[in-house]
Amino acid sequence: MGARAVQPPPGEVEAVTVIDFTAFIDRLATASGETILPFFRTSLLGVENKCVSGFDPVTEADRAAEAVMRRMIKASFPQHGIVGEEFGNQNEDAEYVWMLDPIDGTKSFIAGFPIWGTLIALLHRGMPVYGMMHQPYIGERFSGDNGSASYRGPSSVRKLAVRRCASLNEATSFTTSPLLMNSDDRAAFGQVEAEVRLTRYGGDCYSYCMLAAGHLDLVIETELKPYDIAALIPIVSGAGGVITTWEGEPAQGGGRIVAAGDPRVHEAALKLLNR
Amino acid sequence: MGARAVQPPPGEVEAVTVIDFTAFIDRLATASGETILPFFRTSLLGVENKCVSGFDPVTEADRAAEAVMRRMIKASFPQHGIVGEEFGNQNEDAEYVWMLDPIDGTKSFIAGFPIWGTLIALLHRGMPVYGMMHQPYIGERFSGDNGSASYRGPSSVRKLAVRRCASLNEATSFTTSPLLMNSDDRAAFGQVEAEVRLTRYGGDCYSYCMLAAGHLDLVIETELKPYDIAALIPIVSGAGGVITTWEGEPAQGGGRIVAAGDPRVHEAALKLLNR
Repeated sequence: MGARAVQPPPGEVEAVTVIDFTAFIDRLATASGETILPFFRTSLLGVENKCVSGFDPVTEADRAAEAVMRRMIKASFPQHGIVGEEFGNQNEDAEYVWMLDPIDGTKSFIAGFPIWGTLIALLHRGMPVYGMMHQPYIGERFSGDNGSASYRGPSSVRKLAVRRCASLNEATSFTTSPLLMNSDDRAAFGQVEAEVRLTRYGGDCYSYCMLAAGHLDLVIETELKPYDIAALIPIVSGAGGVITTWEGEPAQGGGRIVAAGDPRVHEAALKLLNR
Repeated sequence: MGARAVQPPPGEVEAVTVIDFTAFIDRLATASGETILPFFRTSLLGVENKCVSGFDPVTEADRAAEAVMRRMIKASFPQHGIVGEEFGNQNEDAEYVWMLDPIDGTKSFIAGFPIWGTLIALLHRGMPVYGMMHQPYIGERFSGDNGSASYRGPSSVRKLAVRRCASLNEATSFTTSPLLMNSDDRAAFGQVEAEVRLTRYGGDCYSYCMLAAGHLDLVIETELKPYDIAALIPIVSGAGGVITTWEGEPAQGGGRIVAAGDPRVHEAALKLLNR
């Protein structure tokens, strides 16, 4: 994590600046991953849950993993706020706030596809300063601090960097599903879809990480919650990408999001979405 | 691999029956995986190929992996036929024929998503008797011989078994993309889509393996080549599922395919598709 992200404003001294947030976030990822994995592909593990009414592996995993992370944060940083998908907001006006989404991509999780991730964001005065996407089944972590972004897999550690793309008609675009959009947004999105070279569905948090890694050019989504996007902002920005709302505003509030590797593609998409 | 699959008809003696095909197929998977992986997520590896015209990582990987497998097959079983995506058909009327698709899910591969697979099928007198789907990045292999099917991952080995599902309106359905269908097929597919509980896009070979693993109920596709489906038939059948064409005929010729974990869902889907 860059020093920039955790240093206090000049003249201000805080105990928190001596803490190594990077190592702590890695511990959060490891603990949440260990909590979630026993629930993934449970039919492969021989767990007979199909007929037990009320048992929902993804909800159980989501709640258990968020509870683990909340306990760790409270123990180490009792003054920090926490915003999570499962257990709501706590002290969310604190200087430092954690945003947690234990399983982003629940539909992939349920279907056994390993393209979901655990999202962990640290916000300082409302700005996401560090984000991680962790995929514990594959064993890969994407992280960023707005200044840089990196990938760690089972056998390698690499910097993440977006790729250049001059225009929409050269762009590969992702959205989780147009069915998640309201009819106005879908119509606006349709205009972008008609311009790009290739459009694909599905992906959730992986789309933003693959954009940061230079494999695709554009991600457009709607109806996102703050914890769906906060962790991905410092990764996309750190890799050199642009991520805003459809109105061009900061993305950390969620809602309708456009991320692009190249600012030219971002600008062209915004124009069509707001036509 | 079950003895049933490789034993010659009674009274016939062939040298080939003493060969351990299972171990050989594993070697094909290992060799093709090692050939493909250096091409996957090349931007993460720092390879600057973006501006080198004519260099297409997925095509290079596809060709290199198929060439490796063909060499191995010819060396060990010179009398066998081979049908592959990249290098065409060779001796395809032989008693034993291999069908190879080095990278099924090229669009996922290009976008950096680890949900593509290498498909290896062995056909005996035109029937797929053994199939494997190998995902070398994650390190998982799904295989089947019509009688049983299994999963091997980095830390576990399990039997695969489909789940029960009484009716279409309880089913989770996958198709790679309705945009790949012609307009008549898309209309027919739309009738099934309107009945199921949940429909998702994307997946390629993973959809069939997750059906075999009991995570989803129905896969419907069109325009498949024989090598897109041959390896998946013994996996789906071995896990207890049903896989045919939309007309209810054997699936190994490709074309329009319906796979279901539960025969009731298969029958209901066929009815709607042929209405």
